[in-house]
Amino acid sequence: MDPTQVPTFEDVLKARDLIQDQVHRTPVITCHSLNEISGCELFFKAENFQKVGAFKFRGAYHAIQCLSEVEAQRGVVTHSSGNHAQALALAARMRGIEAHIVMPVTAPQVKRKAVAGYGARIIDCQPELESREAVTEEVLKDTGGTFIHPFNDSRVISGQGTATVELLEEVRDLDVILTPVGGGGLLSGAVLAVQGIQPSILVCGVEPQLADDAHQSLKIGEIQPPRPPKTIADGLLTALGNLTFAIIKDGVQDILLVSEAEILQATRHLWERAKLVVEPSGAVPFASTLRDDFPFRGKRVGIIISGGNVDLDRLQFKQS
Amino acid sequence: MDPTQVPTFEDVLKARDLIQDQVHRTPVITCHSLNEISGCELFFKAENFQKVGAFKFRGAYHAIQCLSEVEAQRGVVTHSSGNHAQALALAARMRGIEAHIVMPVTAPQVKRKAVAGYGARIIDCQPELESREAVTEEVLKDTGGTFIHPFNDSRVISGQGTATVELLEEVRDLDVILTPVGGGGLLSGAVLAVQGIQPSILVCGVEPQLADDAHQSLKIGEIQPPRPPKTIADGLLTALGNLTFAIIKDGVQDILLVSEAEILQATRHLWERAKLVVEPSGAVPFASTLRDDFPFRGKRVGIIISGGNVDLDRLQFKQS
Repeated sequence: MDPTQVPTFEDVLKARDLIQDQVHRTPVITCHSLNEISGCELFFKAENFQKVGAFKFRGAYHAIQCLSEVEAQRGVVTHSSGNHAQALALAARMRGIEAHIVMPVTAPQVKRKAVAGYGARIIDCQPELESREAVTEEVLKDTGGTFIHPFNDSRVISGQGTATVELLEEVRDLDVILTPVGGGGLLSGAVLAVQGIQPSILVCGVEPQLADDAHQSLKIGEIQPPRPPKTIADGLLTALGNLTFAIIKDGVQDILLVSEAEILQATRHLWERAKLVVEPSGAVPFASTLRDDFPFRGKRVGIIISGGNVDLDRLQFKQS
Repeated sequence: MDPTQVPTFEDVLKARDLIQDQVHRTPVITCHSLNEISGCELFFKAENFQKVGAFKFRGAYHAIQCLSEVEAQRGVVTHSSGNHAQALALAARMRGIEAHIVMPVTAPQVKRKAVAGYGARIIDCQPELESREAVTEEVLKDTGGTFIHPFNDSRVISGQGTATVELLEEVRDLDVILTPVGGGGLLSGAVLAVQGIQPSILVCGVEPQLADDAHQSLKIGEIQPPRPPKTIADGLLTALGNLTFAIIKDGVQDILLVSEAEILQATRHLWERAKLVVEPSGAVPFASTLRDDFPFRGKRVGIIISGGNVDLDRLQFKQS
C-alpha cells in the first residue's frame, strides 16, 4: 500500500488480517468504581498490555509486514524517542531485519536501553528538529532503508485502527470512543474503524491543555505546530500530520482538553482503582470524564488506554 | 451447603453457576519480557481486576448467595482488615443485607474507609486474637447473623476455586499452577479445580520465607501457627484452617518459599513489564520463578495474581 495516501476502513481490515497472529488481543477492562466516579459506563481497551507496552506496536508491525522482501532487507529507519522507537525495533527484530533509530542525545537512558534491548541500532542526533531530520536523511541515504513515520503513514494508521476494531467487536452499542491525540495515528485509526463498523458512534480526541495543537487545528481548519513541551503527558506533544488531519477533521466530533491536575488524578485513579499501570498520556481520555463539563455523562464510553511505559522511580502522584 | 465440610469439585462447579453473572471473568495476561526473565511460559490470571480488587470477592459473594432468605435477613459477620472485609461488604450490599465487620483499631484508615464505603458496619476490637474473637462472638449473639470465615469455610473455598476453573478453560496444557498461600482458600480451591478438570497439572503454593507456616505445616503434617507479621506480603500471614489443610496436604506438590527481596523485585517486574498493579502478596508466586532453584523452568506455568490493593503513597520499590 502507498504510505502517503489516506487509508480507508478496508485498509484497517487488511491490516488486521496481516497482524493479528502477532499482536496481543488486549482485554477490555471495566471498573465499577471508575463508573461511579465518572458517572458513565466505561470500557477501557487496555493497550498498555500490548507488546512493548503501547498500541504503537500495531502500526509499526503492520508497516514492516507491508514491506517487500527487497525493501525489508535494507531495513527500516525512524526518529523517535518514545514508544514508536521500541515498537519499530521489536517489529524489525521479529521480521529479522535491521532497525535504525535516530534519537536525541537528551533522551532518557531508560528509553535508549529499551530500544537497544530490542536489537536496534541507535544513531544520535541533537534535540532540535533540524538535526533530527538531517541525521535521518543521512541514515536513509547510507542504508537505503525505508522510513517509517510514527503516525503520518497509512500503513501505521491502518495498523492503529485495529485496536478500535477489536474494541467494537467486544463491546456493543458504545455511544462514544475517546482516544488521546498526539500525532493522531490512534485517533484517525479509530475514526476509520467506527466509520466502517458503526458510524453512529461519536469519536473524540483528548489532549492536554498545554498541548492543544490538535484542538486548535480542528478549530482553525489547518494543522497547528506543536506547543512547548510542558505537559506531563509527554507522548502527546507532536503536531498532526496531513494524513491524520485529513481523517480527523471530518470524522472527529471534538477534541476535548484536560488540565495537568486532571491528568494526574486520572492516572492515579487508573492505577489505584482499575489496577492498570498507565502512562500519563494514556490517562488523558479518562481525565476528560472527570470534568464537570464532560459532554457524555451517563453514556457508554469506550476509552483506548494508549500505553503503560512509565519510569517507576520517577513517577510521583503528588504535584510538585 | 454445610460450611464445615470439605468441599469437592462439584461444589466449585455449583459455585461457578451461582456467581458467574456477578463476578468478573478476569483476563489472562501474558508478557513476553517476563517469560524471558523467568525462562518459563507464564499465564497470569489477573484477579487484581476482580471486584474489590481481589479474588476474595468470589468466595464472599458465593457464601452470601448460599444463605437462605431467613439467614440473609440477619446479615453476615466476619473479622478481617483485609480484602475479605471489603469483599464481604460489597457482596452483602449486592444482596441488600447487612455486613458487620470486626476490625482492629490499628487497621489502616484507608482500609476502614473502603469497607465503610461499601456500606458495612465496622465494629472495633483490639488487635489481639482474644479481643477479636470475643467481639465477634458478641456481634453474632446480638445480630443472629451468619459468620463467614475468610477461608476456612467450604462456601468460600468453592467460590475461590472458580478462578482456577476459568484459567483452565482459557489456557490449555499448563504444567503447573502457582498461587499465594495465606489461609489457603485460593490454593485449596485451585487443587479442587485441577483435580476435577486436568489432574495431571501440578499445584504449588508459594509463601514468604518470613511467613512459612504453610510450608512447615505440610512438612510436619499438622497445621502450624502463624509467624510474627514481618513480611511485606501482609495478606499471607494467617495460618491454614482444617478445611484448607485437608485439601492442601494431599493435593499440593510443594509450598515454595521466597525472600522479601524477591517479592519486591517480582512486584516491580509485574508493574513495570506486565503493567499490572499487584499487591506484594499477589506477586509472591511469580517471585518463585525468579529463583535459581525454581523447579519448573521451561514449563507452562499458570499464576493466580491474588489482588492489587496497594496504598500508592506508601509502596516503595526500594528496600529501606
